[in-house]
Amino acid sequence: MSTASGAGGSRLDPHHERYASRAQNMTASEIRALFAVASRPEVVSLAGGMPYLRALPLHDIAALVERVVAEQGTEALQYSSGQGDPGLREQICTVMSKVGITAHPDEVVVTAGSQQALDLVTRIFIDPGDVVLVEAPSYVGALGTFRSYQAEVRHVAMDADGLIPAALGEALDDLRREGRSPKLLYTVASFHNPAGVTLTAQRRTEVLQICREAGLLLLEDDPYGLLGFDGPPPRAIRADDPAADTVVYLGSFSKTFAPGLRVGWALAPHAVRDKLVLASEATQLCPSAFAQLTVSAYLRTQPWEEQVKVYREVYRERRDSLLAALEELMPPGSTWTSPTGGFYVWLTLPEGIDAAQMLPLAVSERVAYVPGAAFYAGASLPDEARRSMRLSYCYPEPERIREGVRRLAAVVARELDLRATFGAGTGDSTGQSTGLSTGHSARQVIEPNARGPAADTA
Amino acid sequence: MSTASGAGGSRLDPHHERYASRAQNMTASEIRALFAVASRPEVVSLAGGMPYLRALPLHDIAALVERVVAEQGTEALQYSSGQGDPGLREQICTVMSKVGITAHPDEVVVTAGSQQALDLVTRIFIDPGDVVLVEAPSYVGALGTFRSYQAEVRHVAMDADGLIPAALGEALDDLRREGRSPKLLYTVASFHNPAGVTLTAQRRTEVLQICREAGLLLLEDDPYGLLGFDGPPPRAIRADDPAADTVVYLGSFSKTFAPGLRVGWALAPHAVRDKLVLASEATQLCPSAFAQLTVSAYLRTQPWEEQVKVYREVYRERRDSLLAALEELMPPGSTWTSPTGGFYVWLTLPEGIDAAQMLPLAVSERVAYVPGAAFYAGASLPDEARRSMRLSYCYPEPERIREGVRRLAAVVARELDLRATFGAGTGDSTGQSTGLSTGHSARQVIEPNARGPAADTA
Repeated sequence: MSTASGAGGSRLDPHHERYASRAQNMTASEIRALFAVASRPEVVSLAGGMPYLRALPLHDIAALVERVVAEQGTEALQYSSGQGDPGLREQICTVMSKVGITAHPDEVVVTAGSQQALDLVTRIFIDPGDVVLVEAPSYVGALGTFRSYQAEVRHVAMDADGLIPAALGEALDDLRREGRSPKLLYTVASFHNPAGVTLTAQRRTEVLQICREAGLLLLEDDPYGLLGFDGPPPRAIRADDPAADTVVYLGSFSKTFAPGLRVGWALAPHAVRDKLVLASEATQLCPSAFAQLTVSAYLRTQPWEEQVKVYREVYRERRDSLLAALEELMPPGSTWTSPTGGFYVWLTLPEGIDAAQMLPLAVSERVAYVPGAAFYAGASLPDEARRSMRLSYCYPEPERIREGVRRLAAVVARELDLRATFGAGTGDSTGQSTGLSTGHSARQVIEPNARGPAADTA
Repeated sequence: MSTASGAGGSRLDPHHERYASRAQNMTASEIRALFAVASRPEVVSLAGGMPYLRALPLHDIAALVERVVAEQGTEALQYSSGQGDPGLREQICTVMSKVGITAHPDEVVVTAGSQQALDLVTRIFIDPGDVVLVEAPSYVGALGTFRSYQAEVRHVAMDADGLIPAALGEALDDLRREGRSPKLLYTVASFHNPAGVTLTAQRRTEVLQICREAGLLLLEDDPYGLLGFDGPPPRAIRADDPAADTVVYLGSFSKTFAPGLRVGWALAPHAVRDKLVLASEATQLCPSAFAQLTVSAYLRTQPWEEQVKVYREVYRERRDSLLAALEELMPPGSTWTSPTGGFYVWLTLPEGIDAAQMLPLAVSERVAYVPGAAFYAGASLPDEARRSMRLSYCYPEPERIREGVRRLAAVVARELDLRATFGAGTGDSTGQSTGLSTGHSARQVIEPNARGPAADTA
């Protein structure tokens, strides 16, 4: 049945000259191809960001959805308001209070996961060619959304403390010199996807201040905020936005409860909220009442904060397992981040490795990851990112994680051997400076566990 | 809490100069305002298109969702594929076989209701300024989507047999003379929303032929196809698309099962399907597995076709009730359509009435409807449509429908009295020809129940 190719049009596609210009940019993502690979049971997938749902009390949730339909069926199965269920919006305000946010339910728009919130914000703010600033690296799903609206994405350097304020300032200066002003800054400040780092409190203040002065909308995507392993959750940037008009905050139940419901939200100033609701109505009429009332009943009747603690413990154990395995098995010259929450470690391999090119070999050795290139827009991939990858520790059991790293280390060793034997054929080795470690900061970025300089590359 | 106005920007909105140009067109729809009004229990709402869910076996469905979560919870609550659950896509092909379509599950994309399918198709095909052809009148939700992508919408006349092929040909000729070619024709061929008419079999052939010859994508939106009151469901246009490449067919479980799940689909040629999946991923990552597996279990374990029959009987009785009340109570000069399925009657009042202007009075008299103007794009409202409205018979009980028409008739009588006493102040009465009855056809359109010419207008 598979005839015409999906990417870029084909002579076999009778419609290929009719697509909108935005559809020219639509090509299958590496993440998407990997989801297919990762579903094979023999592969240890360190690729996907799927939460570990076996940690949920499924029988309690089954009983809960039974009651939702039996008792509120004519509401749960019916059309509902575009903005979302008022009761759930009130509960969402309570959830946000855990990251320091004081908000009114009227400012909340419920969406089909926070991905849809991201899509709607982009839809109402971004014209083709508008500049969006993102971290380097940045969430692959956000890059896909920005690309689909034909935004020009520019990356801003991070280090182990998150986005570097001085680098943000420089990016704004550069744009000013070009006579351009960016529309928004997209950031995952807490337990970054994919970098695994967290923006410090001091830098949150600085970044917010820079955005306010520049009149730049700050889009704070916070799906992992409650999943920190040490101490209280990081305070959201939105919590300290004095007029509550610089930050649009995105939240999600996908990681604190379950992603299959597709329930997330945006918290936005009133005028922006109005447009988000209209855009949501044009997109889907209304979010699912069935899913919303299920989440609402879950928050009301189940010990949801206890469940978040359960998740935290599960993920902390897996992070420990991953970091220990990396420490033991990765070759010299490898560096990685040490997440204090969330799902991801950013691993940078010794010079000479190309993580994207290595992936087919890795999969044949039954381990999967997402190459660093997936987290950069277009042609902006720095050399260092070419030898980087995202490792997810959220889904596999600790022993499987260890086995996955063992397989990965063997693949890397083979690549380095080949390179030592036959010379530099596939990698960079130019020593070119990168978005992750250029001179915006004196620190070697995203390398708190560096095991020393590259030693055995060709 | 309500400060800044939603429409068009405001000095109170610090972001009002930053919105994308598409967001300039986003203003609150009349439908949206009406949903709020219609929810007051004392109002007989003939406005909304909400299915009558009390006809569903809620306790059976409650037991079913309990089993879905208990037995498939780690799948139902997890992320899933962008294209949709393979088992459900197979079942969707069986559902489509009821309207004559032979399709492969690989050609189906599951969406958050068919509204999202409509949004995604528009997203991949429509650049700002592209021309979209729609019926006159057309589904308000489709108009909202086309507007949000800055399409230029042109209406094509209908009559009691649906879209008029000659009028479609003329619209294409007009565009050709302007040197333009439209991107797509959007049609609700069966049990039209809002017109309540159905495209005849002969015209389906003609319309498809015209689209094929013009290289025009035909977007067939078929949420009501199985809800016919007489005989077998109308055969879908897609069923007779020889190469299956001219028609993109949209379906929905919102009317045959329940809208609160937000499960619909698009059936599209492979290359188009690929782009739809990518667009869906950029929008929401994946459709809800929870909702999909619920629908799948419902189709597998419940007598869903029997349920469709139950719905049909409920709606047939309500249609009868509405038509009888109109016949008895509406003043001379009123005309309306006689639907053979679906949810809606299109009522045109005597000259001099402005249905939009009359709405506040009607609501104060505790009856609601959607004014005809809502179903026309921009400035293209013909005079006849100005005195028209959509009446929905799907939700209220038959006796309430009768009471609603009684209230409506009293409001209309008062308006006509005022007009007779004080002269034409608010209406049209210019006799200007309309999109519904211009010379594309010799027939008086959408007036099978005409009670004679307007008699007592001023």
